[in-house]
Amino acid sequence: MSSNFLNALGGTRLYPLTDRQLSKLSHAEQISQLSAGGAKVVQLREKSLSPLEFYREAEAAVRVARECGLTIIINDRVDIALALKADGVHLGQDDMPAEAARGILGPRAIIGFSTHNVEQAQLAAAMPVDYVAIGPMFATLTKQGGYAPVGLEELNLVRQAIGGRPLVAIGGITFENSLSVLSAGADALSLIRDIWIPDGQASNRTRRLLHRL
Amino acid sequence: MSSNFLNALGGTRLYPLTDRQLSKLSHAEQISQLSAGGAKVVQLREKSLSPLEFYREAEAAVRVARECGLTIIINDRVDIALALKADGVHLGQDDMPAEAARGILGPRAIIGFSTHNVEQAQLAAAMPVDYVAIGPMFATLTKQGGYAPVGLEELNLVRQAIGGRPLVAIGGITFENSLSVLSAGADALSLIRDIWIPDGQASNRTRRLLHRL
Repeated sequence: MSSNFLNALGGTRLYPLTDRQLSKLSHAEQISQLSAGGAKVVQLREKSLSPLEFYREAEAAVRVARECGLTIIINDRVDIALALKADGVHLGQDDMPAEAARGILGPRAIIGFSTHNVEQAQLAAAMPVDYVAIGPMFATLTKQGGYAPVGLEELNLVRQAIGGRPLVAIGGITFENSLSVLSAGADALSLIRDIWIPDGQASNRTRRLLHRL
Repeated sequence: MSSNFLNALGGTRLYPLTDRQLSKLSHAEQISQLSAGGAKVVQLREKSLSPLEFYREAEAAVRVARECGLTIIINDRVDIALALKADGVHLGQDDMPAEAARGILGPRAIIGFSTHNVEQAQLAAAMPVDYVAIGPMFATLTKQGGYAPVGLEELNLVRQAIGGRPLVAIGGITFENSLSVLSAGADALSLIRDIWIPDGQASNRTRRLLHRL
């Protein structure tokens, strides 16, 4: 089960997220930019739209992802992912249980799960999820639910705690610290601010980052 | 398709909602009270819990509904309804499209849709939904999204506009005005305040109301 996610990454180590607070582009346009920059797997995250508006945005984004050959993961809403035949969902600690999501999405869907410390990561490793996300790695301005930064030392403990399960690091990751996070045990990096800031355009920074990783 | 909902009502004309603002009981305990009062179909509505908390509450509520032989409809979250094998979902104007919900829930699920005027009700009648809800009927303290009260005259126009599609009236309905709303064309009434107020216990008032209707 674990290999679905790594297969989709196809050797890349970047798993960027869309963000309508940091970019004025629609989710679909953001997907298009991330694809142009070389990303293979992207996550659609949306916290402020109504379910209907999110559905419409996600519908357009899934269409673009299909055209570009991208793997697209939907944050939180399992029903929207299922209805649009997206490739999977990303669930947080407060979302519906991974077991329930697996039950309705089936064995081929990619399911990711957010954790914020070693204990949560250990629990996640026993769940039917394809990857474990850990964060925030460093202090960040992007909302992370009030958890303390994990840091490289605890990341290494998480790596050991979850065995071979794919591990995604998120939160406060920049061009500068990216390699150290991979060295400490992450399989892939979720960047948000450092690819969308300063101008809401991400294709060039995505390309430069993928060269670096 | 239309008869699923009326069949579930089994001749009763009441479709009550749970409400954790008006009752301190859990959703499961509320379902139990509504069943004791004679209700056959209930809707679980929850706007303040996290998806995970809602999932846990709904899981317990569906279990009680099964024990009592009640039909249980989940508000908004199609994924939670699907995972818990609830009987259906109730969707609002800002929720995911009814077509998408039907696609993932299948033909046997009961799908209801909220409308607030004749135009919206007409559109709803062309959707794959089992019943159309119309409201708020009268001025109400319970949040209804800022729409103006429909009143009995427009309810009658809605009745004509949607043909034989089952029609549920909601919003500001009381013991006193209940019969007039049925006379104006509603097939069933969704009551909230007048069954849970004043003490958060609903079984006696549900029973008295069912005698009246």
